[in-house]
Amino acid sequence: MSAGLPQLALGIDIGGTNTVFGIVDHRGDILYRGAISTKKHENVEDYINELYNAIAPAIKEMGGKGNIKGIGVGAPNGNFYTGAIEYAPNLNWKGIIPLAELITNKFGIPAALTNDANAAAVGEMMYGAAKGLKDFIVITLGTGVGSGIVVNGQLVYGHDGFAGELGHTIAIPGGRKHYSTGAHGSLEAYASATGVRFTALEMLEKNPDQPSLMREYPADKIDSRVVYDCAMKGDAMANEVYRFTGEVLGMSLANFVMFSSPKAIILFGGLCKAGDLILNPTREHMEANLLPIFQNKVQLLFSELKESDAAILGASALVWDMK
Amino acid sequence: MSAGLPQLALGIDIGGTNTVFGIVDHRGDILYRGAISTKKHENVEDYINELYNAIAPAIKEMGGKGNIKGIGVGAPNGNFYTGAIEYAPNLNWKGIIPLAELITNKFGIPAALTNDANAAAVGEMMYGAAKGLKDFIVITLGTGVGSGIVVNGQLVYGHDGFAGELGHTIAIPGGRKHYSTGAHGSLEAYASATGVRFTALEMLEKNPDQPSLMREYPADKIDSRVVYDCAMKGDAMANEVYRFTGEVLGMSLANFVMFSSPKAIILFGGLCKAGDLILNPTREHMEANLLPIFQNKVQLLFSELKESDAAILGASALVWDMK
Repeated sequence: MSAGLPQLALGIDIGGTNTVFGIVDHRGDILYRGAISTKKHENVEDYINELYNAIAPAIKEMGGKGNIKGIGVGAPNGNFYTGAIEYAPNLNWKGIIPLAELITNKFGIPAALTNDANAAAVGEMMYGAAKGLKDFIVITLGTGVGSGIVVNGQLVYGHDGFAGELGHTIAIPGGRKHYSTGAHGSLEAYASATGVRFTALEMLEKNPDQPSLMREYPADKIDSRVVYDCAMKGDAMANEVYRFTGEVLGMSLANFVMFSSPKAIILFGGLCKAGDLILNPTREHMEANLLPIFQNKVQLLFSELKESDAAILGASALVWDMK
Repeated sequence: MSAGLPQLALGIDIGGTNTVFGIVDHRGDILYRGAISTKKHENVEDYINELYNAIAPAIKEMGGKGNIKGIGVGAPNGNFYTGAIEYAPNLNWKGIIPLAELITNKFGIPAALTNDANAAAVGEMMYGAAKGLKDFIVITLGTGVGSGIVVNGQLVYGHDGFAGELGHTIAIPGGRKHYSTGAHGSLEAYASATGVRFTALEMLEKNPDQPSLMREYPADKIDSRVVYDCAMKGDAMANEVYRFTGEVLGMSLANFVMFSSPKAIILFGGLCKAGDLILNPTREHMEANLLPIFQNKVQLLFSELKESDAAILGASALVWDMK
């Protein structure tokens, strides 16, 4: 690199609710960070205008856009090959949104796009729990369930850029109907925050005579946070909700292990706040469903990165690979 | 390459019943082929002696071992990283067998080993239905269910060399107990020749009043061949056996597609002789379980290679990559 200011990357992570962004240097230090709402914009152009207005002052402060090598964006259903968000069920913008192009045009800086969970996987590989690993899987357990898969040190994109939709694999054939895709028994219908809520409601309904602290809440207030709080107070049914969630997740993880034999599976996202309540049953059922040659080999870990940091770092890492 | 005779490769495919081998040139022409029994040797040294005695005359005929660049071996539970067969449930030799080393020592020619299904995948990529593809999966439907997965043009080995055990992924949680692993509901317990036999026996027992041509056979004679013959004669229950098998297989294939988004899935092995009887329900249930972004994109094909040829060609292809 020639003399002058160091080259920087802008990382943007688009979530269903909020968008977080940061300006990052080569060492992975986030020099500036900010956030805007994703949800409030029905129109993607309005959203990009607000994003630009939020970031432009920071770019100026960092010496102007000449110092920003590129923009990396992580988004649900973001396709690395096409640079477009394609049919994202959790975003307002329907159909195919050519996001990388819209951002490149608005900012005057080249932009690349990938799936948010893929970005998290790259963040883990460069700066987090997967440092030095060539084969691992990141599972994001948030409102939905996402995944980023790394094989031979490379993200798995598949022939069309859509690989790694592990939240939509069928965990229980004929099982619970997914609230958005309509599939029966997909992992996301159980192992997401939304899934935990549905499991709690189902258990309350199916066991009307069993007392539970969760009964002190109206049904529409019961979410994964309430279930967690009740479980920590020793509530048996709330504990059972997490045990069951771990059973379904662990069984699915076993199947993923027998596919790509990762050295580690890194769990990431809101549901990880439940700690051992979710980790222990998940590990138990993963091991129980593995062929002996795979048992006691896979590290099942929580991410060490702050959730928003991993997403920003992962998205920004797309920039360092730009030609 | 310098003048003189062309360099050749010896490909060996070790199956549970038979071992087939061939001497192959760079174009994929099999110049010599032969077979011995795998099953009859309790002792791996005896097996290797017979193998050597069967192949040595052919090596001599091809100009001697100086013309054989190497030996590639495909075997169940063959580990590319260690060169050993490790705990193969369908072979007589138990524990860890350092097969590549034993063969290298006996033949005086360097040998490399991989999983038989991985070898088939390489064979398909170099000479078969996967020519030119960078993302595909080969599923072998024989006595058992094996798989070879290619991502970004590379075989997926995982961190320990054991990736791609898709036959042991759980298709139906709590389902049929696997005759050898003891797992409940693994794909192999349904979508193998053995699985087809068990499904037929179960259906006969559960529907004692339903007539079926399969009832003309004693239970111990009912195998996938009998089920096929009866189905072709229009027997409803035998047709239902294949439909159900395709349902379970198709559901699993959908999960695999959402993992690595392959351009094609290539089916290979004895069960493929059932043709559309197995292909149609498999395709139907694969599509029905896919997220819309994956639907109507994956080619579901039968291998174009003769079964023994693909295995020999795939095993021999290991040799061309040898340093």
